[in-house]
Amino acid sequence: MATQPGIACDIVVFGGTGDLALRKLLPALYYLHREGHLHADTRILALARRNESNQGYRHWVRRQVSQYLAPGDFSDTVWSGFAERLDYLSLDVSQRVEFPRLARQLGQQPGRVRVFYLATLPNLFAATARHLASVGLADEQARIVLEKPLGESLPTAARINDEIGEYFSESRVFRIDHYLGKEAVQNLLALRFGNALFEPLWRNAHIEHVQISVLETVGVENRGDYYDRAGAMRDMVQNHLLQLLCLVAMEAPVHFEPEAVRNEKLKILEALRPITGMDVQDVTVRGQYAAGKRAGEELPAYYFEKSVDHDSNTETFVALKVEIDNWRWAGVPFYLRTGKRLAQRKSEIIIQFKSVPHRLFAQGHETPTENRLVIRLQPDESIRLSLMAKSPGRGMTLQPVDLDLNFAKAFKKRRWDAYERLLLDVIQGDATLFMRRDEIEAAWRWIDPILTGWQDCYRSPKPYASGSWGPDAANSLVERLGHQWFETDA
Amino acid sequence: MATQPGIACDIVVFGGTGDLALRKLLPALYYLHREGHLHADTRILALARRNESNQGYRHWVRRQVSQYLAPGDFSDTVWSGFAERLDYLSLDVSQRVEFPRLARQLGQQPGRVRVFYLATLPNLFAATARHLASVGLADEQARIVLEKPLGESLPTAARINDEIGEYFSESRVFRIDHYLGKEAVQNLLALRFGNALFEPLWRNAHIEHVQISVLETVGVENRGDYYDRAGAMRDMVQNHLLQLLCLVAMEAPVHFEPEAVRNEKLKILEALRPITGMDVQDVTVRGQYAAGKRAGEELPAYYFEKSVDHDSNTETFVALKVEIDNWRWAGVPFYLRTGKRLAQRKSEIIIQFKSVPHRLFAQGHETPTENRLVIRLQPDESIRLSLMAKSPGRGMTLQPVDLDLNFAKAFKKRRWDAYERLLLDVIQGDATLFMRRDEIEAAWRWIDPILTGWQDCYRSPKPYASGSWGPDAANSLVERLGHQWFETDA
Repeated sequence: MATQPGIACDIVVFGGTGDLALRKLLPALYYLHREGHLHADTRILALARRNESNQGYRHWVRRQVSQYLAPGDFSDTVWSGFAERLDYLSLDVSQRVEFPRLARQLGQQPGRVRVFYLATLPNLFAATARHLASVGLADEQARIVLEKPLGESLPTAARINDEIGEYFSESRVFRIDHYLGKEAVQNLLALRFGNALFEPLWRNAHIEHVQISVLETVGVENRGDYYDRAGAMRDMVQNHLLQLLCLVAMEAPVHFEPEAVRNEKLKILEALRPITGMDVQDVTVRGQYAAGKRAGEELPAYYFEKSVDHDSNTETFVALKVEIDNWRWAGVPFYLRTGKRLAQRKSEIIIQFKSVPHRLFAQGHETPTENRLVIRLQPDESIRLSLMAKSPGRGMTLQPVDLDLNFAKAFKKRRWDAYERLLLDVIQGDATLFMRRDEIEAAWRWIDPILTGWQDCYRSPKPYASGSWGPDAANSLVERLGHQWFETDA
Repeated sequence: MATQPGIACDIVVFGGTGDLALRKLLPALYYLHREGHLHADTRILALARRNESNQGYRHWVRRQVSQYLAPGDFSDTVWSGFAERLDYLSLDVSQRVEFPRLARQLGQQPGRVRVFYLATLPNLFAATARHLASVGLADEQARIVLEKPLGESLPTAARINDEIGEYFSESRVFRIDHYLGKEAVQNLLALRFGNALFEPLWRNAHIEHVQISVLETVGVENRGDYYDRAGAMRDMVQNHLLQLLCLVAMEAPVHFEPEAVRNEKLKILEALRPITGMDVQDVTVRGQYAAGKRAGEELPAYYFEKSVDHDSNTETFVALKVEIDNWRWAGVPFYLRTGKRLAQRKSEIIIQFKSVPHRLFAQGHETPTENRLVIRLQPDESIRLSLMAKSPGRGMTLQPVDLDLNFAKAFKKRRWDAYERLLLDVIQGDATLFMRRDEIEAAWRWIDPILTGWQDCYRSPKPYASGSWGPDAANSLVERLGHQWFETDA
């Protein structure tokens, strides 16, 4: 993983007026600029259809971006340096004839690294790649970054990958999953493979079950149009949740390098026990949010949201019991859960260790937590190890205590946003934290039969009140084996 | 372990004007009284030679004790209730004829629990037991508490045990080691046997070495007379350090009950590899403090201390490399270290886990700590688990972080002093945290050849500057296997 700071490059953002660019990419680039991680000669070119001058775009972006920075991080001096790197080009990506203009703007610079970040709808991916190639921009130094969702099934994903692959070889395709850019997620790898302490315990002999929860409080907001076609399974499970599962479950890679890491992740995806036929009823739960209330605010049901079909059967909640058929994990349920309009915003990975084989001491607590490792990704990033310790004073009664590592407190440095880290990786050409084609397709291969099962049964998703923890069936799913979702926030 | 609060009893403190009574026992009893752990009818009788009235003793004790309580804990109201329990009797324990007075004072109360706490010199233990028996006070409800040091060699310890045993059956003899009353020490047991997490790692496959350090900054103070005959080996290693070693190393007991726990500790003492003959030179280090300076203060050499022989060869520092010859610990060095006039006051047990078998990530730190569990007993009680985590930002560089549990912060309750807990255990008749005769004697059986070896070699202890970390030889002892004493205070 040779990383030299400061490769000069062009960063070309398609969808330069979109939400992702404004909320994430441009703030991330601003920080990278501020902290000296961009080469002096690195340029940023934003593209969108809107007709706008460089000055007009910069002015508008300045207002937008400043509100997404951490308080106090916006500075006029930094901004003016950053704005000098930033240009705008009005361009309709669906029109091949517009691309020579782009090529002229970028200029002939053989050997220069160019990052094409496709922050657009996926139905434009193929055309964009083709048009870039048509004007000679898909050369060996070009890198293309694709945002999820990549397809909506195995065949559609394969088609996009085929089309992109015609112009960009696999090593130049960066399929981004920003969850992999989070410090706490990378710390999961550091914990597992940088410590001799956890690895001997990290298997079915010692782990009772694993929970991966990505819970949101928001509804579909302005994304009804996209979301009603996708649903939680395609939007969250196929990418974020399965990626987290891979990192929890994978074997130690030979090296911390792209192919080695992704080979191990792929092995997990291929070891997922298929959920087909009647199993779909048994080990999956889908829900859709109904009306509800939070903090006095009336929240509408999903099917009343903007751009959502009134008869929609789209799921806004998914819970799964997943099994991994390999030596390490046989018999350990992995519970995945994600949804919108839930009681709490929280993304967590929970490793619940088995109980002690023999109780020597009294328990001062009704349901002993015993040993649990909680890796929290949102809203804050932290690691918590729950242990049983002696309750002070007489006798020998145990009570749970937590050993905590809060990253914000432990490391005085400002925490990087996931996109900062991942953008630098793209510039460096390091694909370790990006998804390889075969991973994406293996994920779809496992997801598709569940989607088919849901469709075949014609059953509607179970309604759950907005602001709740999801449908009751999600609780039954885990209670069958005597487990519980970890919900309280200590 | 049936413990009912509030058994009415007599607590008879021999050595009632001594340091231990004033600094530890009476403050502990004051707290137990304040917090309702003493039965309304429990009486405290202090004995000493000094001629003094009840009122005079109470008045004097009040002044003395109040300074050993935590700030703000002394209250006139509490004191006056406590003082009503407290009587004084002038008595020379070496004189049998004085004991009928004691019997009269305690009165005929068949079945009443009586705790005889011998906070006196050990050469008075046997006579005291005999005299108590002579006036019928050594009955089945009588418990005798013996302070260390119990003997100065196997034969002398056995003789005291024999003599006590003539009058008090083993189950009524409470050999106190106040280290076992410390919360952090009991938490070592809670950690090991109340969590499924540690036990699989707690063995030679995963542990590199163990360190047990009990370091003091004080010199011999007013104890030169006793200390110059005893030395650090008898004063600290034979009891405190070996007891800690037993708790770290023992197998899980069948029950948390006196015989089960002590059987397991005994097995460790019997598995200690003997240090005899030339091994004494190889795996032991003894030191004696020379003059030095701390915080501008000139500190005298040991041999200039009050009541110390100017030619003294007594050790004020010991370091040992100990091996336990059993399946769990074969090949794992246990380093023990204790001394006076050292750089820092600190008692700690350190479990150093092995390094990861294969390094996947760069280390951002020169000497990686990797995984280390630090159980600190003094000055504060805490548990710290050191891990490697990802350094924030780019790349995947590891740096050490600590997961901390500070008892004072974690538990809002006031922390019990070791003596409070142990006194209540004696009242309840629970000997789990007290040393059985065979333990004491097994410890001496292992210690004696080292003392003999030192004597036979005629070598003087190695001098070390007051305020230092002890003689250099202590470092060489551990460096031979590539280890290091854990000295920095994070």
